[in-house]
Amino acid sequence: MPELSPISVAFLVFPNVTQLDLTGPAQILSRLGNTSIDLVWKTRDPVPTDSGFPLLPTKTFDEVSQADILCVPGGFGTVDVMQDDEAIGWVRSMGTGADWVTSVCTGALVLGAAGLLKGYEATTHWASHEQLAFFGATPVKRRIVLDRNRLTGGGVTSGIDFALALVARIRGEAHAKFVQLSVEYDPHPPFDSGAPEKADAETLERYWALVNKAAPGRVETVRAIARRRGFDT
Amino acid sequence: MPELSPISVAFLVFPNVTQLDLTGPAQILSRLGNTSIDLVWKTRDPVPTDSGFPLLPTKTFDEVSQADILCVPGGFGTVDVMQDDEAIGWVRSMGTGADWVTSVCTGALVLGAAGLLKGYEATTHWASHEQLAFFGATPVKRRIVLDRNRLTGGGVTSGIDFALALVARIRGEAHAKFVQLSVEYDPHPPFDSGAPEKADAETLERYWALVNKAAPGRVETVRAIARRRGFDT
Repeated sequence: MPELSPISVAFLVFPNVTQLDLTGPAQILSRLGNTSIDLVWKTRDPVPTDSGFPLLPTKTFDEVSQADILCVPGGFGTVDVMQDDEAIGWVRSMGTGADWVTSVCTGALVLGAAGLLKGYEATTHWASHEQLAFFGATPVKRRIVLDRNRLTGGGVTSGIDFALALVARIRGEAHAKFVQLSVEYDPHPPFDSGAPEKADAETLERYWALVNKAAPGRVETVRAIARRRGFDT
Repeated sequence: MPELSPISVAFLVFPNVTQLDLTGPAQILSRLGNTSIDLVWKTRDPVPTDSGFPLLPTKTFDEVSQADILCVPGGFGTVDVMQDDEAIGWVRSMGTGADWVTSVCTGALVLGAAGLLKGYEATTHWASHEQLAFFGATPVKRRIVLDRNRLTGGGVTSGIDFALALVARIRGEAHAKFVQLSVEYDPHPPFDSGAPEKADAETLERYWALVNKAAPGRVETVRAIARRRGFDT
């Protein structure tokens, strides 16, 4: 497809990222045509993910100063990223110059910490939704939220829906439908338990028990980070 | 969850793999609890994927001789893997000892080339479906096909449905529903173009034009590989 304009995509990658937040949209966006995809972090050393295998950054912060699409994935590691001035500085700088400023899952909180969602509608993983307000964003309960050039997705698997929507915006609906067919995205979840409104009480209880054990006091931690970064929460 | 029995998962990784075939199920299966995930190839050097960034093998063939779950992802690189005696030998040996012999997308053709689908029902990416018969398998048009301990998924994104079904088999339905909620798997594809029966004629035409350019004569190539491997096609 030589007639397509080049599109550069920069994903932030970081320790304890939820890797599917990144690899899902990366698969879809790599089919934009004439695309370059980079995974960017402080060094090119392998970065541990939440899934038991590492991802390998392709570039470092000082090698990438501009991209057409900035995408920040989520995961438990976002709490450290939000407190990391070097990482937040890079996200802020990239977000100022990118055509599209995007996130999947709790990556939205990193965009928020970088000041990129102030005054914007946004979404994030359902269990962290209200935390968007700490950073001056308006939480909207939808799987994908578009506000001007900010496109944010909900939890983990929303990255696929998110990326197809972005492909449609950039290359048109016909191209997005072609990409959907190529990845056979005709989902048939074996259960209907993918949102808090749909899950039964036992499943929700199991979820919160695990999160409260894995990341105790997370909401207060994020609120404190927002205050230290000058947000009035 | 210390009471859960340990589960080991070995993914084959190879050059020009469709990375979401692997990273999607790896995300889900990493939440089985008490799980180890390995990406296995000849060396630990970075392996290029179809998405513009590499994956890093965590182990080599000679370091992994057994796993509870073997999973082979797909992609254009499968044609080389099917002709690679070392890789096919490892897949065959692993498949003989694993509790679950599984694939996503055209990874099923690799299982087939290793003789692991002879006499089994199976599925694969819709565009390669009939090629399963070259290896003595019975192609079944479903997103996930279970036949004894063989569990095969359709194209790319089916790996998420596939992995949730496997979690339910191994840890029970309640655990699978918890995992589904944790990854917010409540898909809302922006278009309904994820299967050949649903896509419009223009989309199908665009798809075949690209595949025939990227991998001309692929069906005959796969048939010839099957013949050389002793299958009567």
